[in-house]
Amino acid sequence: MESSDATESSNNARLERVTTRESYTFQDQRGWRKWRILRPGRGMYHDVKRRLPYYRSDITDAFTYRAFASTVRLYFVNVLPAIAFTLDMYRRTGEFFGINEALFASALAAMVFSLVSCQPLTIVGVTGLIALFNYTIYDIIAIYDPTIYPAFTAWVGIWAAIFHWIVSFGNFCDYMAYVTDFSSETFGMYVGIIYCIKGVEELTYLFEVSDFSGGYLSIIIAVLYFGSVYGLEKLGGSTLFKPAIRGIIADYSFVFPTLFWVSFSHFPGRLENTGLYRVPIVGAFEPTQQRDWVIDFWNLDVKWVFVALPFGFLMMLLFYYDHNVSSLTAQARQYPLKKPAGFHWDFFLLGCTCFVCGIIGLPLPNGLVPQAPVHTDSLTVYETRLEVTETKDGGEIRKPVVEATAVVEQRVSHFLMGMAIWGTMTGPLLTVLHTMPAAVFAGVFFVVGWGSIESNGIIAKALYLINERRFLQPSNPLNTVSRKKVMLFIGIQILGVACTVAISQTIAAIGFPVLITALIPLRTFLMPKWFTEHELSVLDALTANSPYVLVSFGGTPAGMESDQEGEGRGVGDVEGGNEIKVECAESGTSQCGILEYVWKL
Amino acid sequence: MESSDATESSNNARLERVTTRESYTFQDQRGWRKWRILRPGRGMYHDVKRRLPYYRSDITDAFTYRAFASTVRLYFVNVLPAIAFTLDMYRRTGEFFGINEALFASALAAMVFSLVSCQPLTIVGVTGLIALFNYTIYDIIAIYDPTIYPAFTAWVGIWAAIFHWIVSFGNFCDYMAYVTDFSSETFGMYVGIIYCIKGVEELTYLFEVSDFSGGYLSIIIAVLYFGSVYGLEKLGGSTLFKPAIRGIIADYSFVFPTLFWVSFSHFPGRLENTGLYRVPIVGAFEPTQQRDWVIDFWNLDVKWVFVALPFGFLMMLLFYYDHNVSSLTAQARQYPLKKPAGFHWDFFLLGCTCFVCGIIGLPLPNGLVPQAPVHTDSLTVYETRLEVTETKDGGEIRKPVVEATAVVEQRVSHFLMGMAIWGTMTGPLLTVLHTMPAAVFAGVFFVVGWGSIESNGIIAKALYLINERRFLQPSNPLNTVSRKKVMLFIGIQILGVACTVAISQTIAAIGFPVLITALIPLRTFLMPKWFTEHELSVLDALTANSPYVLVSFGGTPAGMESDQEGEGRGVGDVEGGNEIKVECAESGTSQCGILEYVWKL
Repeated sequence: MESSDATESSNNARLERVTTRESYTFQDQRGWRKWRILRPGRGMYHDVKRRLPYYRSDITDAFTYRAFASTVRLYFVNVLPAIAFTLDMYRRTGEFFGINEALFASALAAMVFSLVSCQPLTIVGVTGLIALFNYTIYDIIAIYDPTIYPAFTAWVGIWAAIFHWIVSFGNFCDYMAYVTDFSSETFGMYVGIIYCIKGVEELTYLFEVSDFSGGYLSIIIAVLYFGSVYGLEKLGGSTLFKPAIRGIIADYSFVFPTLFWVSFSHFPGRLENTGLYRVPIVGAFEPTQQRDWVIDFWNLDVKWVFVALPFGFLMMLLFYYDHNVSSLTAQARQYPLKKPAGFHWDFFLLGCTCFVCGIIGLPLPNGLVPQAPVHTDSLTVYETRLEVTETKDGGEIRKPVVEATAVVEQRVSHFLMGMAIWGTMTGPLLTVLHTMPAAVFAGVFFVVGWGSIESNGIIAKALYLINERRFLQPSNPLNTVSRKKVMLFIGIQILGVACTVAISQTIAAIGFPVLITALIPLRTFLMPKWFTEHELSVLDALTANSPYVLVSFGGTPAGMESDQEGEGRGVGDVEGGNEIKVECAESGTSQCGILEYVWKL
Repeated sequence: MESSDATESSNNARLERVTTRESYTFQDQRGWRKWRILRPGRGMYHDVKRRLPYYRSDITDAFTYRAFASTVRLYFVNVLPAIAFTLDMYRRTGEFFGINEALFASALAAMVFSLVSCQPLTIVGVTGLIALFNYTIYDIIAIYDPTIYPAFTAWVGIWAAIFHWIVSFGNFCDYMAYVTDFSSETFGMYVGIIYCIKGVEELTYLFEVSDFSGGYLSIIIAVLYFGSVYGLEKLGGSTLFKPAIRGIIADYSFVFPTLFWVSFSHFPGRLENTGLYRVPIVGAFEPTQQRDWVIDFWNLDVKWVFVALPFGFLMMLLFYYDHNVSSLTAQARQYPLKKPAGFHWDFFLLGCTCFVCGIIGLPLPNGLVPQAPVHTDSLTVYETRLEVTETKDGGEIRKPVVEATAVVEQRVSHFLMGMAIWGTMTGPLLTVLHTMPAAVFAGVFFVVGWGSIESNGIIAKALYLINERRFLQPSNPLNTVSRKKVMLFIGIQILGVACTVAISQTIAAIGFPVLITALIPLRTFLMPKWFTEHELSVLDALTANSPYVLVSFGGTPAGMESDQEGEGRGVGDVEGGNEIKVECAESGTSQCGILEYVWKL
């Protein structure tokens, strides 16, 4: 990376020309050439060709403290929720998927994606949605014959892999270019709510596996764990202490509370004597059930093999949305990224992990939605700058302005995190894991879930609406849209959240990827009829709009150009609290996305 | 009250001349006349003479919604902590002081002080310090003979009453004029910490009277009760919703959570089956122990009667500080009060309640320190005004500014609250009280205690010191004082807090009023040697500086005039959050008390 200011901008311009050269696009093609499926593998080829030159720098750029801090943070943010979901999945799939399966899947995915993916910033692991998917399949299969579950689930993985490869060779990831905040916010809200529900379910379950006192103590630990992580994160984002100390607090906001509350649960006396349910483990590197790692999927009735096909398709649809949105948010517009994206290639890799994990009976890993931007964020170099606004009466108002100046784009932190997960699978560390009360994981659900809800654009717009009007900043671009339209916009989003959350509580949960994916065409084809172009440009924006990202989709999608005008987006606030600002480079502030204006209340 | 603007200011000026006419002062007196004790009852006579003309308006002014909301809020803020402390006192005084005694004392005090006091804004009731005092006396007496405790404590009350009367006839309340933020903040911090400690002690105790599950559930209820009241209070102070809705949220921030969490503890199923410890009650209007209401104090050994004398003196010293500081903070400088104070007369009344409560075996009531300003605050008419600051670059920044425009000064809310307490003593309502889990009261401890800590000036100055320097507002007057001096100032305060908290945990707790009271001469005589006049004017200020209050002390004390310059004080903030501003009437902003500058972070 150039350090000299003088040459930097010209270098950047050259870099952009090179990496975004549109050697790959389906726009303005005619005849058979416009059919993506007829030119298979074009996207993947260009993804790799574009990214390969950066491989060396992906390693050499990593020698910074940020990469180390990111590894630690990521390990906790990845492993803790994965275990949390597995606790849930374990008991709801007839104890088929256990801790070892979850760790194995996470470690495998981390190896594959840190070493050979085009987007090493996207963390791949075990999510709540795959847990939901797996136990819904179990519920359906259990109606007929629970013993075929392992082989059936292996076939779901195989079919899913096949559909992944069709999509990636068919260049269909291009359509992710149409993902705007409208659907990614809806999805983020849905995921956040599911996480919180899971947290409550986990606590309820703990009353069944331990006595009343164990259950109540678990609630205390979960609530206070949430409070401590949340408090440390807020402290890390304040103006107290020196920036270095704040940085440490923010980097290890999961580490300190986890250590503290696990120790707390072992305090001699009352606490130790309370029967807390702790993480269940089996021998190192062994499957949870008495079985070989490779499932005998060839022994499944052919009838069931074909029943698995639609499940595999739905799984692919889920990952198509979930994984690619993870990558999008990990490369979202607020991060000043310089290395190109590669959606097609990564989706192909995801097909491979689906295949392998399917046949050895692991939960299929995919991009982690609320955690994906955490990786990029922990690698971002933020500078808290002082903004002095002089007032007309001669006074001045001082505000901290946080600016993202650079991102340490590399694949080493991802790799090291994967190594740490391998380590966790060994005997001694599994024993350490067993000392952790399950209550801590309920707390993790609340932290991650609430993090996804609190910063959501739906909440931000809702707060805008219920705020007393005279206190709204006159510069807020939402003022240029009628309040009814804002209500309509978030109304549709809330309806989407409500439907998906509701369906997730039933056996129809298996179909929720259809609902989620349907939001993209809804936004692209129907919403322009209900909103003017200006309204959409204020209310919505492409989730990622950097040319380094869009190049992987073959350029900006038709009809979405107006959204792209505000390239960097002004990140401000309503109330005059802290402000995260990325310069509004090419447009006036009124073109900037609204999410950021009500970011921090 | 005049409503016409035109005549208001001239009326106010006339009002001030009338009420603050210094017919009473000991300043610049010579010979025997300067000895306060030689002209007994002067202060009391003038207190009554000055206040009596307002008695009619104390009733007629009350017909507002604010008085109603204040009654409800006050009932909860008075009765809940009183019961909380009594739960503690009950088991630590051999079950002598119970709920009935606490309610009786509160109701009696409310009747006396609402009907015949000069300062009906000062709420008098059962505090944590009297609980501490009573059980420390019990600890001492129990070494010799616990059976004499009732009669002994009656004599402590009688001696305390006698010392109260000496002080009030001797005009010694004048010295309260020397109370500045230095000691009232230290005391507030001390009380806040004691409350939080009591909350934890209460929860620990609940493990003894119920099983593990009851204990843990109590912690959950206490923590979430704290969270809900705190959250509603924050919401009430935000800019969300319309002002009327915010007002309701703030007014009933204790009511809703109390109803909710009490109901919660009765939910059928797991919650109901958990053995929660609930408030213990006996028959209506009966003493907790089998005894007559009037204690046979005449049967106490004369030796013990005289042993009770120093205890009575210490009790008076405690009340001298505690009660008068309550009155001061209830009439503090941020409230635009118009009716005159009367410290001497009220202290005489407090002697009377000491006497009565002493001989019928009630905990002696006195002014409630963290709750005292709550009454005035709930009677204050706040207007949230929009402050638009134009910036030099043509933009504008909008901030809500909360202004206290008037206080509904009357004695009806105090009286009605007293009636409500009488009602609580009846059979049916006692039964309702018995449905309340003790855990809610632990939550009350945390709410009231944390309220006293969070807004404390010591915290505010400490935050100023640890804030990253470049984000400090240039207009902050603390900038004009060296950081070492700020550290020294709060260092002395923290030392005072540490000593008093430490002593309160031992049998020497009985002596802590000496420590607390010693802060006043320390501030008056020693601190001017360590700080310059300017430093003290920035770091400290008279707790109450309105002429309507100072008149009861015979005017501004010598040597404290410089503090009085900033009459109303600018209430701002460091970070640009909300702002509570009372105009800085007579001086530049640099003269304004610092507490308010760092009020809301």
